[in-house]
Amino acid sequence: MGTRLMELVERFGGRLEGDPQIEVTRIAPLDRAGATDISFLSDSRLRAAAAHSRAAALILSPLDEPDVAAAYDGARIVTNNPYAYFARTAQYLCGSGAAPAPGIHPSAVVHASARVDPTACIGAHVTVEAGAVIGAGAMIDAGCYIGPDASVGERTHFFANVTFHARCVIGARGIVHSGAVIGGDGFGFAVDGGIYIKIPQTGRVVIGDDVDIGSNTAIDRGALDDTVIEDGVKLDNLIQIGHNCRIGAHTAMAGCVGVAGSANIGSHCTFGGAAMINGHIDIADNVHVTAGTLVPNSIAAPGRYTGFYPIAPNAEWERSAALVRNLATMREKIKVLERGMKALGGEQAARAG
Amino acid sequence: MGTRLMELVERFGGRLEGDPQIEVTRIAPLDRAGATDISFLSDSRLRAAAAHSRAAALILSPLDEPDVAAAYDGARIVTNNPYAYFARTAQYLCGSGAAPAPGIHPSAVVHASARVDPTACIGAHVTVEAGAVIGAGAMIDAGCYIGPDASVGERTHFFANVTFHARCVIGARGIVHSGAVIGGDGFGFAVDGGIYIKIPQTGRVVIGDDVDIGSNTAIDRGALDDTVIEDGVKLDNLIQIGHNCRIGAHTAMAGCVGVAGSANIGSHCTFGGAAMINGHIDIADNVHVTAGTLVPNSIAAPGRYTGFYPIAPNAEWERSAALVRNLATMREKIKVLERGMKALGGEQAARAG
Amino acid sequence: MGTRLMELVERFGGRLEGDPQIEVTRIAPLDRAGATDISFLSDSRLRAAAAHSRAAALILSPLDEPDVAAAYDGARIVTNNPYAYFARTAQYLCGSGAAPAPGIHPSAVVHASARVDPTACIGAHVTVEAGAVIGAGAMIDAGCYIGPDASVGERTHFFANVTFHARCVIGARGIVHSGAVIGGDGFGFAVDGGIYIKIPQTGRVVIGDDVDIGSNTAIDRGALDDTVIEDGVKLDNLIQIGHNCRIGAHTAMAGCVGVAGSANIGSHCTFGGAAMINGHIDIADNVHVTAGTLVPNSIAAPGRYTGFYPIAPNAEWERSAALVRNLATMREKIKVLERGMKALGGEQAARAG
Repeated sequence: MGTRLMELVERFGGRLEGDPQIEVTRIAPLDRAGATDISFLSDSRLRAAAAHSRAAALILSPLDEPDVAAAYDGARIVTNNPYAYFARTAQYLCGSGAAPAPGIHPSAVVHASARVDPTACIGAHVTVEAGAVIGAGAMIDAGCYIGPDASVGERTHFFANVTFHARCVIGARGIVHSGAVIGGDGFGFAVDGGIYIKIPQTGRVVIGDDVDIGSNTAIDRGALDDTVIEDGVKLDNLIQIGHNCRIGAHTAMAGCVGVAGSANIGSHCTFGGAAMINGHIDIADNVHVTAGTLVPNSIAAPGRYTGFYPIAPNAEWERSAALVRNLATMREKIKVLERGMKALGGEQAARAG
Repeated sequence: MGTRLMELVERFGGRLEGDPQIEVTRIAPLDRAGATDISFLSDSRLRAAAAHSRAAALILSPLDEPDVAAAYDGARIVTNNPYAYFARTAQYLCGSGAAPAPGIHPSAVVHASARVDPTACIGAHVTVEAGAVIGAGAMIDAGCYIGPDASVGERTHFFANVTFHARCVIGARGIVHSGAVIGGDGFGFAVDGGIYIKIPQTGRVVIGDDVDIGSNTAIDRGALDDTVIEDGVKLDNLIQIGHNCRIGAHTAMAGCVGVAGSANIGSHCTFGGAAMINGHIDIADNVHVTAGTLVPNSIAAPGRYTGFYPIAPNAEWERSAALVRNLATMREKIKVLERGMKALGGEQAARAG
Repeated sequence: MGTRLMELVERFGGRLEGDPQIEVTRIAPLDRAGATDISFLSDSRLRAAAAHSRAAALILSPLDEPDVAAAYDGARIVTNNPYAYFARTAQYLCGSGAAPAPGIHPSAVVHASARVDPTACIGAHVTVEAGAVIGAGAMIDAGCYIGPDASVGERTHFFANVTFHARCVIGARGIVHSGAVIGGDGFGFAVDGGIYIKIPQTGRVVIGDDVDIGSNTAIDRGALDDTVIEDGVKLDNLIQIGHNCRIGAHTAMAGCVGVAGSANIGSHCTFGGAAMINGHIDIADNVHVTAGTLVPNSIAAPGRYTGFYPIAPNAEWERSAALVRNLATMREKIKVLERGMKALGGEQAARAG
């Protein structure tokens, strides 16, 4: 029933100290793991907890191993990145559950011209429009909508109630969570005499491989060109991506982030929750934006960037906010003081003192 | 057809001045209430409007009653909290409408192993997966998805198009609005060589009794442990709750609030719109956070906390924002002035003056 | 197959320079347009690109025309607002595609008392409740929910998975994108002993003509009165509109904006992404609020308003944020300096100097 440690090491590498035949069934935290669990130590400050864990086996780094091994008598998998090893092991242990049987639920409405791979799984009340393509092993859960000529890659999983509009494309092994809307019209208008005139949005959303998209996140289709989400991008819940954005490979965004149209964002960036990115700007690779920060202009240099008003007890904030509004007056007073000081010879006096 | 005042007082208490047989059919504002309406006075500044109201009856406080009674000749229900009395009365008058007939709509797809109480109501195009439990009097409106082994308590109401994922639990008398997604995967990854590796999210979302969840709000399931929403919590629309958060009983959050993973929030707190709460922090009971405020660290003391940049005409903001960026220079200039002043003996002179 | 330039000029006006029989099939950007495309010049800085475009025809202004005509030998439509002309042309060229056949999909559940115009189009898995009215040429795509007695105007288009609740009204030619929720309950509670008591929300959402609503946007129904969205309003994705708001005609809001209850917003306003509007305030016509700005109080004068903390490299922000918290100290020091300066006669010295 369980998974032997041998099997894990063969698959994910690492050096095994202990009996390769030991079986584990579950990942558990250090303090709650029992005799059939495997646990992990990814933070050296928890060495003591690891040493006293009752887990059958531990995943840990070469740095922590000697110390822990002195007191802990279970098996140990030694690896340079125990947290990543834990993630892979957890995926492996979870994945051994029964997958749903492939096929199309009788309540689903699939157009005759759509091509659904026989190994794909189409849930109840799903709609698949004309010309859409659903890849091998893909799972489209209940209530999803797949627009005309849209394409879903191999083993990509749409949770219930995803909307994926016409001609949009997503690659392999993606995960799209419930309520996400991919390929809604971009927000593009011309103005004539104060009246908005809609500009038809005829581009697509093109999403790479291994992309995760959170619940109720919206990604708009491009106006003329496409909106592009590159490989390995991870988007949390309730994110807004405007039309014609490009999000570079392996960039991650936390919940409630907003990206205005035509922003061009590099690879390996991170954005904290509710960060807001202006449109028509470029952000370099390896830029990290703190939560709650508005990015009005391009960022050319990698690094961490921040900009939110510090929180305080309300009365204190009222004082500081009033002073922020009066900074110009304060600067003026300083200038007057500097002039006075100069007239009195104060600077020289200070230097002489 | 109407509800007699006697019936209200028997049910909700209060002292009745006037004929207990008077019938009312509707709640209406003071200035628009007519001969079959009941109205309420919850703000003493509106005493004059109350005195001249044409409502059949008024709900008001002992403080306001003598003044109003001098001019107003309708019936009066006197109670210490007229606004709460109004809310209960309004619920009671609304609730007397016809409820939908219990049963499962023929277009719904309900797994044979799901247990749906015969008094529950399952709408069109609903999907109920294996092992799910739907309590007595629960209403699951059209297009909802109820995942495997999920559990919905007595008299809880899901509006159309709610997604409620596997193994999640909600108690009695809850209200979940359309587009809400409960139990999507938490946003958890290990990083290996710049690549994100998904950590399976195997916890649940466990929601207490009398919880309201707004439209398009998302609450993620826990990684190993559960995400917990305690009794009486009220969440508005478009809120994001990360994995493994705890929201204490009777806490309320306005629209667009974001809460990052593992935040532990106390009871009886309030959060204004678009407040953002960092992950892995603790917030005490009775903390009140103003709209638009980012909370980066734990808050141990009750009280009101604020932190947003004050709005101004754009040109004025540009000036103040530039000065905020130059505060270090300003402080430096003040230090220089202080040194100069000291050298000149200015402080003593000021004191002597 | 194409559209003759003559046809465009007859429909949308403008002065045509060139052969009226030229046919175009598509709009394309200046640098990518080919022999059957029409392009446009809306920014004089792109004159050179226009001059060398291979488009069959260009839309441009009288100001740009002479310069471009010197080098460009295609046809030209000269108009005062080339961008608006482009939008109308693009709509016209897109609209010539085949519309879906009218009728009700067999999987849709439409109540016998609902009135669906025979020219309307009801998609798969749609639910239309009792008493609802769907106007001529309206398109209700797959998975939408139309509540009891709701009303959808002529030629209004709901994309897949829209929720439109009981008694709500939308006018003609509207577009509602996927995941939008119109008419969820407003967030209204009375408090009694720390417990929230729900106030029934019995108002509606009433939406005018030519209104666009973005993906996953939520608009709450009023408490007693209605929430009102006037003609020509354009709302982007993931916007929250609280109960009893009024949004004036031809106002536009970018993604992630939040508007708290009972805000009364004028006409021809614009709101940048994630702007947050407090409840119970009035905003005049022609007010423009920058992205990321919180509006706590009423705004009476037209103009642009801004209030977000400037972004900086993280270390620099930490310094400035600490100083913002210490502004009161800084002001105190300036006062001390001013007193010292006065005692020393520095001001007079400065003036004398």
